[in-house]
Amino acid sequence: MTLRISIIGFGAVGQGVAEVLMRTNHPVRVVAIADSRGAVVDSCGVDLADALQRKRDAGTVATTDMTAIDIIEGVDHEIMVETTPTEMATGGIGLIHIKKAFEKKRHVVTSNKGPLVAKYSELCRIARENDLHFRFEATVGGAMPIINLSEEILAGNRVLAIEGVLNGTCNYILTRMDDEGVSYEQALGEAQELGIVEADPTADVEGIDTVAKIVILANSVFGMDVGYEDVDVTGITKITPEAFKLAKEGGYTIRLIGEIQDGTLKVAPKMVPRNHPLNIGGTFNIASIQTELAGRITIGGIGAGSIETASAILSDILWIKRVLGD
Amino acid sequence: MTLRISIIGFGAVGQGVAEVLMRTNHPVRVVAIADSRGAVVDSCGVDLADALQRKRDAGTVATTDMTAIDIIEGVDHEIMVETTPTEMATGGIGLIHIKKAFEKKRHVVTSNKGPLVAKYSELCRIARENDLHFRFEATVGGAMPIINLSEEILAGNRVLAIEGVLNGTCNYILTRMDDEGVSYEQALGEAQELGIVEADPTADVEGIDTVAKIVILANSVFGMDVGYEDVDVTGITKITPEAFKLAKEGGYTIRLIGEIQDGTLKVAPKMVPRNHPLNIGGTFNIASIQTELAGRITIGGIGAGSIETASAILSDILWIKRVLGD
Repeated sequence: MTLRISIIGFGAVGQGVAEVLMRTNHPVRVVAIADSRGAVVDSCGVDLADALQRKRDAGTVATTDMTAIDIIEGVDHEIMVETTPTEMATGGIGLIHIKKAFEKKRHVVTSNKGPLVAKYSELCRIARENDLHFRFEATVGGAMPIINLSEEILAGNRVLAIEGVLNGTCNYILTRMDDEGVSYEQALGEAQELGIVEADPTADVEGIDTVAKIVILANSVFGMDVGYEDVDVTGITKITPEAFKLAKEGGYTIRLIGEIQDGTLKVAPKMVPRNHPLNIGGTFNIASIQTELAGRITIGGIGAGSIETASAILSDILWIKRVLGD
Repeated sequence: MTLRISIIGFGAVGQGVAEVLMRTNHPVRVVAIADSRGAVVDSCGVDLADALQRKRDAGTVATTDMTAIDIIEGVDHEIMVETTPTEMATGGIGLIHIKKAFEKKRHVVTSNKGPLVAKYSELCRIARENDLHFRFEATVGGAMPIINLSEEILAGNRVLAIEGVLNGTCNYILTRMDDEGVSYEQALGEAQELGIVEADPTADVEGIDTVAKIVILANSVFGMDVGYEDVDVTGITKITPEAFKLAKEGGYTIRLIGEIQDGTLKVAPKMVPRNHPLNIGGTFNIASIQTELAGRITIGGIGAGSIETASAILSDILWIKRVLGD
């Protein structure tokens, strides 16, 4: 059977999902796409090339003024793919979309951290009660498949701790400071010129984005029930070239590390030995997973990018397809 | 339903499987264990603590003189776990065990590289024709879940190339040469003192073990049909301290890399940039998987050790259990 999906939110990641589906040949049919200004609906399959072109030309995918909620409520489909912008404190519009999808008995795949940080346990309970799948690999580390790895591949193998480099922007800045001896401000400026940093870099450099990922990992992999306020956080804005010099002399570098250990959640700059797996350069993400039987497993991948993030969404869609036995 | 398994081969890995099953609480019952001198059989479940103790005291697990073949043929069970020593050229006794298990309609989980290097496509064909599962995560990189990651997590995402540090012994030797400036012979001597190297280190240091892993990855992940002779191999025995010195000056280190790229299979020492993911220290294994959509994914883990390897076997057993819907 061809699985029918909606794409709710058509920014970089939503467009990436459309592109990835065009490039590959999976029996997945997009029956609706919504952005903030309207939607396009076709039960026989939205023309994805057209939709992408319209978005580029007109700034919206819309051919009707139906809203995301109209789509989720009124268009038949099995999986809602939620890729609207993140709103961390309340879960924002994404949370409303996900709850509505569950109410209409649709499975959910999302790249949106906000709803998971704000209401993880409630969303999982609703999904479970309705026998629906809720998948969110793309929320942590883009293409790095850490959640599915922890849950499936390491099945039977208790996860004891996770520590990771989970924000590509911070890692780029720290790599430059390390390699070139430049100041934080200079490295940030470079990253801004390269377009690696958001207009307002606060969420990245103050560690907020990493906190969100740690909260999602704590809830999903460790079965905890924690929120944003449970994480002790220090950003990278106060790291000096002198700190790097000292670290280097001792054979170390400095990385922004998010960690979950003994029930404690923390995000802070940390000294990392030079040939340690967490000493990764550039915008790559990497995590080290301490397991009971297998010892330490590391997993790394590109932490951002629309195609890379969309590929994580696709793997979740195909997982649901497999489990449904289609 | 409790799944019944046999353990054929009761060396370090087979004993690791017994220990891992004792430590965890999975509904998996060991109904027989065989080593080269005999077997123990109990359809209600072999007492694993007793079996391990007997092996330590008497050098064999045997309480009867039944052979491995007798067990595979005559004792009812769903999964045969094959952990006998590897014989690369012909597949050896392991190949005979696996074929016999398929003939008796048993699923197979193995850590034994030999049968896969010698007869991969034939074994997969027999398994497929009989609707049986054949899993071998433990053959490549011990606890590093590279095969299952490539096949499942990255589903929908074509793998373009793999390169990896796949032999912990070589990596230990090269790490010591790099860190301490010692000669190959000195580093090998150290590794022998630490018990990291086999009495005859040839299979490790000449790259033969890495070749076997590359062949298994090429066949399983890339769907190729290749054997030992299709890999171009150079070992680490001729690397000098001077080569490391030069590499270091250029910001590189030297690692033994196995790679599959554009249909070509190669194992050879290679220059690796200092903060590249493949620059890993000690006996760790790591692989870099180039994918079509997700870009580069890296996966690392402890490359050897009885418990770590057994944990990969356990993950395969639990995968079969899940797929069978037990």
